[in-house]
Amino acid sequence: MITLLTDFGTTDYFVPAVKGVILSLCPTANIIDLMHDIPAQDVASAAFTLGACYQNFPAGTIHLTVVDPGVGSARRALVVEAGEHYFVGPDNGIFSFVYAREGNWRAFQITRGEFLRPRVSPTFHGRDVFAPVAAWLAKGVAPESFGAEISDVVRLSLSPPEPTETGWRGAVIHVDHFGNCITNLTAREWTLQDCTANTRLLIAGQIVSQFGTHFAQSAKANELFAYLGSAGYWEIALWQDSAANRLQVQRGTVVQLLRGEAG
Amino acid sequence: MITLLTDFGTTDYFVPAVKGVILSLCPTANIIDLMHDIPAQDVASAAFTLGACYQNFPAGTIHLTVVDPGVGSARRALVVEAGEHYFVGPDNGIFSFVYAREGNWRAFQITRGEFLRPRVSPTFHGRDVFAPVAAWLAKGVAPESFGAEISDVVRLSLSPPEPTETGWRGAVIHVDHFGNCITNLTAREWTLQDCTANTRLLIAGQIVSQFGTHFAQSAKANELFAYLGSAGYWEIALWQDSAANRLQVQRGTVVQLLRGEAG
Amino acid sequence: MITLLTDFGTTDYFVPAVKGVILSLCPTANIIDLMHDIPAQDVASAAFTLGACYQNFPAGTIHLTVVDPGVGSARRALVVEAGEHYFVGPDNGIFSFVYAREGNWRAFQITRGEFLRPRVSPTFHGRDVFAPVAAWLAKGVAPESFGAEISDVVRLSLSPPEPTETGWRGAVIHVDHFGNCITNLTAREWTLQDCTANTRLLIAGQIVSQFGTHFAQSAKANELFAYLGSAGYWEIALWQDSAANRLQVQRGTVVQLLRGEAG
Repeated sequence: MITLLTDFGTTDYFVPAVKGVILSLCPTANIIDLMHDIPAQDVASAAFTLGACYQNFPAGTIHLTVVDPGVGSARRALVVEAGEHYFVGPDNGIFSFVYAREGNWRAFQITRGEFLRPRVSPTFHGRDVFAPVAAWLAKGVAPESFGAEISDVVRLSLSPPEPTETGWRGAVIHVDHFGNCITNLTAREWTLQDCTANTRLLIAGQIVSQFGTHFAQSAKANELFAYLGSAGYWEIALWQDSAANRLQVQRGTVVQLLRGEAG
Repeated sequence: MITLLTDFGTTDYFVPAVKGVILSLCPTANIIDLMHDIPAQDVASAAFTLGACYQNFPAGTIHLTVVDPGVGSARRALVVEAGEHYFVGPDNGIFSFVYAREGNWRAFQITRGEFLRPRVSPTFHGRDVFAPVAAWLAKGVAPESFGAEISDVVRLSLSPPEPTETGWRGAVIHVDHFGNCITNLTAREWTLQDCTANTRLLIAGQIVSQFGTHFAQSAKANELFAYLGSAGYWEIALWQDSAANRLQVQRGTVVQLLRGEAG
Repeated sequence: MITLLTDFGTTDYFVPAVKGVILSLCPTANIIDLMHDIPAQDVASAAFTLGACYQNFPAGTIHLTVVDPGVGSARRALVVEAGEHYFVGPDNGIFSFVYAREGNWRAFQITRGEFLRPRVSPTFHGRDVFAPVAAWLAKGVAPESFGAEISDVVRLSLSPPEPTETGWRGAVIHVDHFGNCITNLTAREWTLQDCTANTRLLIAGQIVSQFGTHFAQSAKANELFAYLGSAGYWEIALWQDSAANRLQVQRGTVVQLLRGEAG
């Protein structure tokens, strides 16, 4: 089973070419499209998306993840083994959430030419490097066969929330297509049970005072609310509207949680 | 074989997560993407789309259909067996065309927790309720195993066309992405053979007087025409343009067919 | 293995219906979505896209390719066998790049009704003609079984580059979704090794003087550059911007390569 996560879009021959190369080498591969509409060259968005869903797949799944603004440059190509999953893609931080979540991981730099296509286009490693490597992995080639193990992989700066005197200080790590703002605050920092009548989120100079478990429970028209979302993070939303537009926030915007002690 | 029809879009981790959950439980499932671009929370559009294509699939297919604005509220979750097909999704009318088309159907309310994911997110039943139920169905669990049979399912109001003194009175039930307006008039009410030189459709204050079997035959530049479309309904179209924009119509707009007796 | 390439978009029931018909006849078919976002009725774009990726698939693959503005008219329906691949679609030039690339090909006009759906909608041959034919091919029916061999297939005008006194004269054959302009010049006409300091491309009254093997090497901010792209053609691009917008060019725009003799 091989999943595909790219920024190739759905209007060019790039995705079909990748599928063809995989299936030519491994006709029994079960290819699962995860997503091809990652914003162009947005490594952080791809990293978040991969991190939010890879663990739903069965052990042994190969995740081919190609958002690769550095294609053709000196950036390294990787096979990563982590949590019974395999990951193939560029060494540009795209696997940051995987490294952060999995205690044990091993990364191997792809250097063995015999596993690549005979002619490697400098602009299309998805087809000529990553697709054949994923196919060979699916055929049973061990991760260490593709090149030397490395430990100095590239990671995005994913600073965890920090405790403050009055609560927690975190950040927006993703804005989804509904305009919901996903923060890096999780149930480890704060749960719905911890909320008091005075708990507040501060973001972009505005105050969020409604907390709930789901849309229907939390939502009042035209009022921001927060809930522990399905990816495991606290999210800020606006009923049938875009919280990101309302707040004019983006990835990296600071969020402050004020505990609001009871009484 | 499990088909997916959702409004999850193609830019978030929602579809991948659903696929992962299914494949983790049932690695041999053949997952077929029907569509993920249903307009957000548009249950009627999903119902029409499902109704227009489910019967093309082989007997035994499981149709996972999640457009679910009421997620997390008290709306029920269903397994429906109808016409040798299975359907899994919320009880909000999304299966209305299935109920209308199939003489015999049985619906079961999903209540048995052992078939769900251990922790059910209140905002993502697609992943935590419907995906695992579809996977268990694919593994051979009988529909009645998921909960009690119910008969008071939610249905959209799909009033059939009504005869009038001069013909039929119907309505637009869907506007497709070309802007063609699909009505609820079928060959049971009217065929091309029934047309006379005086047959007319009235819609939004305009008159359609061209009838044909296909675009090439019927179309004159800049003139509305009607044809019996591939979903089995009379459609109103404009050659290389959007009839819906021209007419300023939408779902629910009334259409009147005037027989126009010959002579 | 059956690939799908259409202009059906992703918001209607057309693609699901095609899949259902195939799987009803041949439940073991492995259906691969190539692309459904070909611009509506743009046969040339579909022809280029098919030509750029079909050869990546394994021998025996069936390519179902439906961009069909003439549906319902007298245009013929084809099964084509070429280069160990099979192609099913309308005879409107959509297979032009296949004919040009493959020395040996045979085309058969689909006329045998027993391989079609019992009722053929005049507006949806994708579902009623091409899908069942692809399924029967996958089940082992020979191409010649579907109808008589023909040789006068429709071809798009794909004139190859012509030599001039000072170099080559070619044309833009595709604009991709990044705005890169793909020309019909290949490594047969010109390689990076052939370039001198004086080599130039002229297009739309502008001069391209930067040549390279990939983006990172070639790009200066705000300056057009050319490279031999992954589909085998010279492309003109603009770093993080649309060359097509800058140049105001489109398919068919003339490109002139000036050798620029050294010294």
